Amino acid sequence: MPDISTATLAYIEQHRDRHMDLLKALLAIPSVSTDSAHLGEVRRCADWLANYLGSMGMENVRLIPTELGHPVIYADRLQAGPDAPVMLVYGHYDVQPADPYEAWESPPFEATIRNDRLYARGASDMKGQLMAVLIALEAAIMTNGLPVNLKFLLEGQEEIGSRNIRTVIEAEGDLFSADFSLNPDAGMWELDRPGICYGLRGLIDFELNLYGPGKDLHSGMYGGAVHNPAQALCEVIAGLHDGDGAVTLDGFYDRVRQIDEGERETLAELGRDEKFFLDSAGVLSLWGETAFSAFERTVARPTLEVHGLKSGYSGEGTKTIIPSKAMAKVSMRLVPDQDPAEISGLFRAHLERTIPPTVEWELTQFSNSYPALMDVSSYFFKAMEEAQNRTWGTPPVYQLGGGSIGVVAILQHRLGVESILTGYSLPEDNVHSPNEHLHLPTWRKGIDSLVYFLENLRR
Amino acid sequence: MPDISTATLAYIEQHRDRHMDLLKALLAIPSVSTDSAHLGEVRRCADWLANYLGSMGMENVRLIPTELGHPVIYADRLQAGPDAPVMLVYGHYDVQPADPYEAWESPPFEATIRNDRLYARGASDMKGQLMAVLIALEAAIMTNGLPVNLKFLLEGQEEIGSRNIRTVIEAEGDLFSADFSLNPDAGMWELDRPGICYGLRGLIDFELNLYGPGKDLHSGMYGGAVHNPAQALCEVIAGLHDGDGAVTLDGFYDRVRQIDEGERETLAELGRDEKFFLDSAGVLSLWGETAFSAFERTVARPTLEVHGLKSGYSGEGTKTIIPSKAMAKVSMRLVPDQDPAEISGLFRAHLERTIPPTVEWELTQFSNSYPALMDVSSYFFKAMEEAQNRTWGTPPVYQLGGGSIGVVAILQHRLGVESILTGYSLPEDNVHSPNEHLHLPTWRKGIDSLVYFLENLRR
Repeated sequence: MPDISTATLAYIEQHRDRHMDLLKALLAIPSVSTDSAHLGEVRRCADWLANYLGSMGMENVRLIPTELGHPVIYADRLQAGPDAPVMLVYGHYDVQPADPYEAWESPPFEATIRNDRLYARGASDMKGQLMAVLIALEAAIMTNGLPVNLKFLLEGQEEIGSRNIRTVIEAEGDLFSADFSLNPDAGMWELDRPGICYGLRGLIDFELNLYGPGKDLHSGMYGGAVHNPAQALCEVIAGLHDGDGAVTLDGFYDRVRQIDEGERETLAELGRDEKFFLDSAGVLSLWGETAFSAFERTVARPTLEVHGLKSGYSGEGTKTIIPSKAMAKVSMRLVPDQDPAEISGLFRAHLERTIPPTVEWELTQFSNSYPALMDVSSYFFKAMEEAQNRTWGTPPVYQLGGGSIGVVAILQHRLGVESILTGYSLPEDNVHSPNEHLHLPTWRKGIDSLVYFLENLRR
Repeated sequence: MPDISTATLAYIEQHRDRHMDLLKALLAIPSVSTDSAHLGEVRRCADWLANYLGSMGMENVRLIPTELGHPVIYADRLQAGPDAPVMLVYGHYDVQPADPYEAWESPPFEATIRNDRLYARGASDMKGQLMAVLIALEAAIMTNGLPVNLKFLLEGQEEIGSRNIRTVIEAEGDLFSADFSLNPDAGMWELDRPGICYGLRGLIDFELNLYGPGKDLHSGMYGGAVHNPAQALCEVIAGLHDGDGAVTLDGFYDRVRQIDEGERETLAELGRDEKFFLDSAGVLSLWGETAFSAFERTVARPTLEVHGLKSGYSGEGTKTIIPSKAMAKVSMRLVPDQDPAEISGLFRAHLERTIPPTVEWELTQFSNSYPALMDVSSYFFKAMEEAQNRTWGTPPVYQLGGGSIGVVAILQHRLGVESILTGYSLPEDNVHSPNEHLHLPTWRKGIDSLVYFLENLRR
């Protein structure tokens, strides 16, 4: 059988510079979804993508408005006939904030190539991944045609917990129904070893504000008489873990799916050992629930993390005040079969029970994502396995992911759609951190593997 | 005996507008000592004062350089003869930072009069107080002459713990020796009731930084495996107090001078009750060591306060990172007979014992001020008592102060000089807070009382 991929790969090679320019243009748009000052930029990014989708041959391109304002993009090309499967490509076009800016070696929104790596906010997570899929699909459309009926679901709120995606999916009925979803927001297991993620953690995240005195007070005049909200906040946060690294919320672990010995062995065989975490995190020692390995703790156990603290004076030197308020950003990663709404309730109940009456407080919740476990038995997963094996000479590692992608559980629960969670990011890409980058040789191999995947679907 | 104050008071009335313009000009200089970006402004403030001292008849005006750069100002006028006492006027020309700027109703460095109050950073603490003394002394010089041999010791580092004042005083030998010091950096007991402060708390303050991962990490990939430095910081801060509001450092209370029943009664009679603290702090309930009243806790007990927290992301919404570092600003107010160096050592030892090896840390100390108790038996205190009684129709309240003025213990220990700690600020002046202000009618009475004080010294 002649390899029909040849024409598609040749097209990709021919358009290599144009595609790189397109990726750089996409990365130049600071689509930071968490910051309302960037609302216009997020929208500009959606328009840019809608335009590109039209130019590559997609039809029915629609921007579906959402409550927060960042639109969901729908597009389809349903020309492969009734027997061909429906593939739903998921992606997000929003990015994490780029601060601290001073830690970047090149400007976060001017994509720069150094050492085979493309540095920019969103290069790895996930504008680069989305472009890999778009390039492979464009090339297939322009050469051999698509073996699938194609739909797109692109959102601009993934980095803020996909807050509006459930509403959109539910409101649109069968619009997003499909035989499977291709979701390239996961990543490689490691360099030269692809991965398919079969489980994700859920996410609930919060801002907690404690309010003390009506204004900042002179600590000499009031120190010892009023409860300092910065101290009270520290007491609250410190109380959320016990000495063994476990989360103290009553009932937090009640529905946690226990991993059995077989799973533990499988996870252990993957070789993501303590050294991996020590080296890649840049820490002297690890931390966490002692009954589980570091890898188990990051993928199979629920966790609670503080993302930010702010109170009073943090400039140079001294300002001897009792601050009037204190703030913490906190999130929890959840595992099957924890329920986000239930855990949010436990958190609020814990705060009501433990925050003393000496301060007032306010809790704001942002996202509410369910954990997910995939059924990977379908033919579509096999097609991806084979394509990745052909590209890298090794089959993908089936892995549990510690991160959260809100749409995955919603597609599963609402439409019965399983997601092929893969992608061409590497663990060392600094996603969510300064100097995020994309390893271009891996990314190019990823595009090749997608071409092979489409070819496999043709048979 | 004719009242020789009449001419002096008439001079003050005659120059009222000019003096107000001078005070506003002094308040327009943002002499924020803690911020190295304001180094030039602090210096400009010192130059401004040196110039004014010269114009009012002071001699030997000198700017003494210090390690941090904010000069100490010396000046004298030693023309009252060998039998007249030497009076050392202390003041500081630096101010607290003005942030949060948005909380000010008028710009902090454009003094604005509203409702008999002059609003500006430093209006009450203590440029206004210093100007009151300067105006009274200028008026005396220009009318009846001074009854004292006068020296000035003005510094630009009080708000950062008078870090260099000890070195300057020790290096200058007898330059600052005097029979007493007039220090207007304390304040009124309350509206229409003057005060003389006979004790101050000492101050040691710190910045504590905890360092975790080498960069901000994705909380989904590393959450549960590494110790979050924001959480670790909260654990450290929470561990500094026990459930009863007492500081947990081993040995912290060992040298604390216990107040006896007589003192407790005296303090209680002053009527600064819980309601005062609730209302003036704007809190719903009080907090602190249960064995002591709120007032006792603020003046006769050592305390530990957090002035600021900073870690990770504190902008709008979410950024799901494990931050690479976390910072807290912490100070302790000390009472007799605690030793600042010893307590600093206890703090460092506590941190060494309790901060886990999962994070690295660094502790920077800023100030190191001793607590002080005054001997108020001398004639000079009686002269001030009488002058204040004449002005307000009530004698001053002898009070303990909860704040810290580094120079007081140094003058006492090194030169045997007791300080008359008084002033015309009110507890409600918002010192160290937004909308700091000076109550002008009280301030003008304060100038009158200083004129009477000088007259009393003449007899």
